[in-house]
Amino acid sequence: MRIGIVGLGRMGGNIARRLLAHDHQCVVFDANASAVEVLASEGAQGVDSLEGLVRALPAPRSIWLMLPAGEITQATIDVLSGLLEAGDTLIDGGNAYFKDDVRRGEALAEQGISYLDVGVSGGVWGLDRGFCMMIGGDREVFERHDPIFASLAPGEGQVEKTPAREERDPRVAQGYLYCGPVGSGHFVKMIHNGIEYGMMQAYAEGFDILRNRNQESLPANQRYDLDTADIAEVWRRGSVVSSWLLDLISISLAKDSDLESFSGKVSDSGEGRWTVDAAIEESVPADVLTASLYTRFRSRTDNTYGEKLLSAMRKEFGGHVEV
Amino acid sequence: MRIGIVGLGRMGGNIARRLLAHDHQCVVFDANASAVEVLASEGAQGVDSLEGLVRALPAPRSIWLMLPAGEITQATIDVLSGLLEAGDTLIDGGNAYFKDDVRRGEALAEQGISYLDVGVSGGVWGLDRGFCMMIGGDREVFERHDPIFASLAPGEGQVEKTPAREERDPRVAQGYLYCGPVGSGHFVKMIHNGIEYGMMQAYAEGFDILRNRNQESLPANQRYDLDTADIAEVWRRGSVVSSWLLDLISISLAKDSDLESFSGKVSDSGEGRWTVDAAIEESVPADVLTASLYTRFRSRTDNTYGEKLLSAMRKEFGGHVEV
Amino acid sequence: MRIGIVGLGRMGGNIARRLLAHDHQCVVFDANASAVEVLASEGAQGVDSLEGLVRALPAPRSIWLMLPAGEITQATIDVLSGLLEAGDTLIDGGNAYFKDDVRRGEALAEQGISYLDVGVSGGVWGLDRGFCMMIGGDREVFERHDPIFASLAPGEGQVEKTPAREERDPRVAQGYLYCGPVGSGHFVKMIHNGIEYGMMQAYAEGFDILRNRNQESLPANQRYDLDTADIAEVWRRGSVVSSWLLDLISISLAKDSDLESFSGKVSDSGEGRWTVDAAIEESVPADVLTASLYTRFRSRTDNTYGEKLLSAMRKEFGGHVEV
Amino acid sequence: MRIGIVGLGRMGGNIARRLLAHDHQCVVFDANASAVEVLASEGAQGVDSLEGLVRALPAPRSIWLMLPAGEITQATIDVLSGLLEAGDTLIDGGNAYFKDDVRRGEALAEQGISYLDVGVSGGVWGLDRGFCMMIGGDREVFERHDPIFASLAPGEGQVEKTPAREERDPRVAQGYLYCGPVGSGHFVKMIHNGIEYGMMQAYAEGFDILRNRNQESLPANQRYDLDTADIAEVWRRGSVVSSWLLDLISISLAKDSDLESFSGKVSDSGEGRWTVDAAIEESVPADVLTASLYTRFRSRTDNTYGEKLLSAMRKEFGGHVEV
Repeated sequence: MRIGIVGLGRMGGNIARRLLAHDHQCVVFDANASAVEVLASEGAQGVDSLEGLVRALPAPRSIWLMLPAGEITQATIDVLSGLLEAGDTLIDGGNAYFKDDVRRGEALAEQGISYLDVGVSGGVWGLDRGFCMMIGGDREVFERHDPIFASLAPGEGQVEKTPAREERDPRVAQGYLYCGPVGSGHFVKMIHNGIEYGMMQAYAEGFDILRNRNQESLPANQRYDLDTADIAEVWRRGSVVSSWLLDLISISLAKDSDLESFSGKVSDSGEGRWTVDAAIEESVPADVLTASLYTRFRSRTDNTYGEKLLSAMRKEFGGHVEV
Repeated sequence: MRIGIVGLGRMGGNIARRLLAHDHQCVVFDANASAVEVLASEGAQGVDSLEGLVRALPAPRSIWLMLPAGEITQATIDVLSGLLEAGDTLIDGGNAYFKDDVRRGEALAEQGISYLDVGVSGGVWGLDRGFCMMIGGDREVFERHDPIFASLAPGEGQVEKTPAREERDPRVAQGYLYCGPVGSGHFVKMIHNGIEYGMMQAYAEGFDILRNRNQESLPANQRYDLDTADIAEVWRRGSVVSSWLLDLISISLAKDSDLESFSGKVSDSGEGRWTVDAAIEESVPADVLTASLYTRFRSRTDNTYGEKLLSAMRKEFGGHVEV
Repeated sequence: MRIGIVGLGRMGGNIARRLLAHDHQCVVFDANASAVEVLASEGAQGVDSLEGLVRALPAPRSIWLMLPAGEITQATIDVLSGLLEAGDTLIDGGNAYFKDDVRRGEALAEQGISYLDVGVSGGVWGLDRGFCMMIGGDREVFERHDPIFASLAPGEGQVEKTPAREERDPRVAQGYLYCGPVGSGHFVKMIHNGIEYGMMQAYAEGFDILRNRNQESLPANQRYDLDTADIAEVWRRGSVVSSWLLDLISISLAKDSDLESFSGKVSDSGEGRWTVDAAIEESVPADVLTASLYTRFRSRTDNTYGEKLLSAMRKEFGGHVEV
Repeated sequence: MRIGIVGLGRMGGNIARRLLAHDHQCVVFDANASAVEVLASEGAQGVDSLEGLVRALPAPRSIWLMLPAGEITQATIDVLSGLLEAGDTLIDGGNAYFKDDVRRGEALAEQGISYLDVGVSGGVWGLDRGFCMMIGGDREVFERHDPIFASLAPGEGQVEKTPAREERDPRVAQGYLYCGPVGSGHFVKMIHNGIEYGMMQAYAEGFDILRNRNQESLPANQRYDLDTADIAEVWRRGSVVSSWLLDLISISLAKDSDLESFSGKVSDSGEGRWTVDAAIEESVPADVLTASLYTRFRSRTDNTYGEKLLSAMRKEFGGHVEV
């Protein structure tokens, strides 16, 4: 297929590359001209404006947006919606909030423009491994873009077949799923990230307890100098906690099991927060996913006002002095 | 009554003072001779050894231990159990682990020595306000020491009468309670402290959110410069969250609403940890009490190994650099 | 002062009564005519429509809304904003979301109508105890309504004076506080409720652990039949966890310490959820306040899909059968 | 090697089978004679008593215990320690508490009997996949039993090689690790299980939020009927949350995405509890691992006393009736 791609950062560039490698034609644009040049040198057709992008695509057009933040995505859609025609399709592969998708999808539908929201997982590994995709929008529009998704997806690979799935859509096991109406793709991706936070925190706490088992204050015969790099590696084979994240932990700890190059101040992105919102909207308890988010908040601050207030209370009732 | 008191620190000294003020005779001992002298100057009979203490008390003796840590309490009991006779009573008013009480009580019972475990709440305010006491041991031994407990307890005070308690032991509303067999006094006190942790943390989080409402990143019309000292004070009257802890918060914030004299590194004592143990033993979920404990752990460390591991994973899968 | 009151439910009716008792003139309206009649029989001037209410008040008018839900409040404001004039004031004493206040305040300001948002705590006890109030809006508008707030507030009462507050607004210690611009009153009340959730949950967990100490599976000498009613009562005097909520617990347990009349399915209102939103907006960890909310969610459902999924995993990897 | 195996349940039987398949000689015993018979028919030498087992093994003997509970393990070790000689080795492959290992190891050492504690992960899949093993004890004893561990371990398999591990013990990447002194094997396995709880709970919460996205109360255009079976499957390829547990979720949901055969009452075993103990011992916050444990507690009870107390408070302060 011929497709336009807007946004050639870490993710967007690799999406273009993987599509090129599967013999699709990509017309690419980025605010950063040198990013366009690089992709042009790899076989894409570079353009220097959104107008140029629209002109370079025959109707009905398909344009994939892969932009880092919500404001830029919205601004880009605002411009494109003035340039596109009924029958064209916008695909947002970024990490949009699903309620924004719903609003955008409804606004574009009034102009006859189709909208697909695609949650994309795989990070920097996607170029080689393929991208796992969760897709929302009209089913018919999804089907029309199947060649794109099929090329981007990882395929079955070495992963063992799941029994009892013979009567289901075989594309799911290729790594892409049509989830439902507009917004559902990003909703599923959002929960994916929420789970990711929880899994990461589970490993983090476990390895923290392992690492701290050499504390002086512990009884000598219950104190161990454990090798976290080896532990991560051994769990990769045959254990219940094996996972891709564990593979990455093992890679990282093999390089530096002290993790000295990291400050421990951990960012969070919108998905973790929106997951908590969704849980609350549905009255579903999400203790672990929320605690994972809060741990990241705490990691980025010094001692909090709340903690100081604890000391203040302790001083007042017990005369405990903590300075 | 005539009673021995061992340990004249912040709590033990005030217990002696309150008993003296209620016309009890106190024979007092502390490893620190000057602490003994001070109390002697206030009307107590000072002694310079545990042997002296036992000699100065007519049988059947009653000795109240008010020692800061479990090891010292155990060592003192070990010595005293060699000096005391059948019919004597040991009272531990410290913060012992209830399982240690059970063990000690059984060992002392073999010698005919009675044991009461008394959980004492009230902190440095107890001298004036009186001490709230939760008492475990044989009921008959408790009854025999009623004059001591009656004097230490706060009494009904200004606190409003609870309806439907007419047929219950009126001493409960004086501030002291016979809880049950050995260990139950400290068990109830332990849970008291667990609840205390949870309440303190609830206030801490709430005031933290209030305080942070002036963040630059918030929309200007949803950003407030709130006066936490005034908020604490206003809640003291008529609100659902009024409490003695809130009174203390108000006192503290009136002095310095920035809490600049506190580092925010918050200690925890055994009770919070033992409360979690008890919850797990009983398979009772205790999310809030446990989270309160963990917050204190976190307050005392720099960024954790676990947090660094989160950054390490983020770097591996997403190329995110957090240093 | 002469004031209109809309909404004569549990809270609104008592606000009218307390104002009448302090010699204010109340013009009252409720969709339920019999509620109007009752108040009229107690000295208020009843009206049968919002139009009638506005007619019965001389300009500049002040109207206090005390309505149960956001939709009704909004609908009422929509009608009233068509009837009121520049210089009039609307006061919302309900539990509105502070962001709705901001929006409403800005819309009304365009018409020259003032808006105060008043967070009111005190529940059904407010008629006698007085209401604790947190007030947002223009300071000048707040000052103009001071007589109303002074009458509704509890006053200093028996509560001990906080030191170091001599140079502060003495009205705070009467139980009402001007918090800041529109929205800040409900913001502070929202956090008040968030803290309330946390404190309630701290007590709930503690009493749960006390109650379950009689489990058969525990060692006989570490098993206690604790009297939770007496424990609540004894903690009211001299302990660190004394609070008004504890007073209520004691009242409730004295009537029925088994709590057999309760199912344990616990509602939550908007404030608990909005508190979590605010924490996330500010990147402030709120572990305890959030866990308290989730506990209520869980209390209202049977076993969750998530829990079934845990069993499903356990069956797959370990052959554990849980049906 | 020639090795004795005590305990032929789900795990022990498969361990014997896998050793037999790798040409080791197994002398097997179980309290259940028919379990012995089955293994005997598969090539093991069956015996009908621990005495028989010891007689059937030439010194220095190696006996692997694979028993379901701590009491039985202890009782068996008590008997065996009376039968074995200096130079023999006991291997405990069950899920013992590491502090019990330390105690046992020290007691056996006094008799000259060696002790290895082996944490074994892999569940019912171990026969085919191999068992992941974490091993504590003297390094020399571990080395002597290397042939056993090498046969039980999964081997490198299809799992991708981790870079930067060239200079490390290659056996780790085979799936078995010498962790350190006695107790460290079970300590690492305990943390493994703690992490497992956290990961399972992360998935459980995420799938719960997905499943509940079809609630009537949600806005129609933000409500989705999501297919959890397909979502699990699609995440297996290329996503960040792929794992062996997710493979199992996909298997389970493909069979019945409603999970109707499960009650949702979820058991927990000692490891989850001990992990919390270890975290507290080390003052390491473990919010997620602990919340995962508490969720299981809650899943097994009806509404708690604590929840009823919440309703009781709400009734007292707000007149809210929840029955």
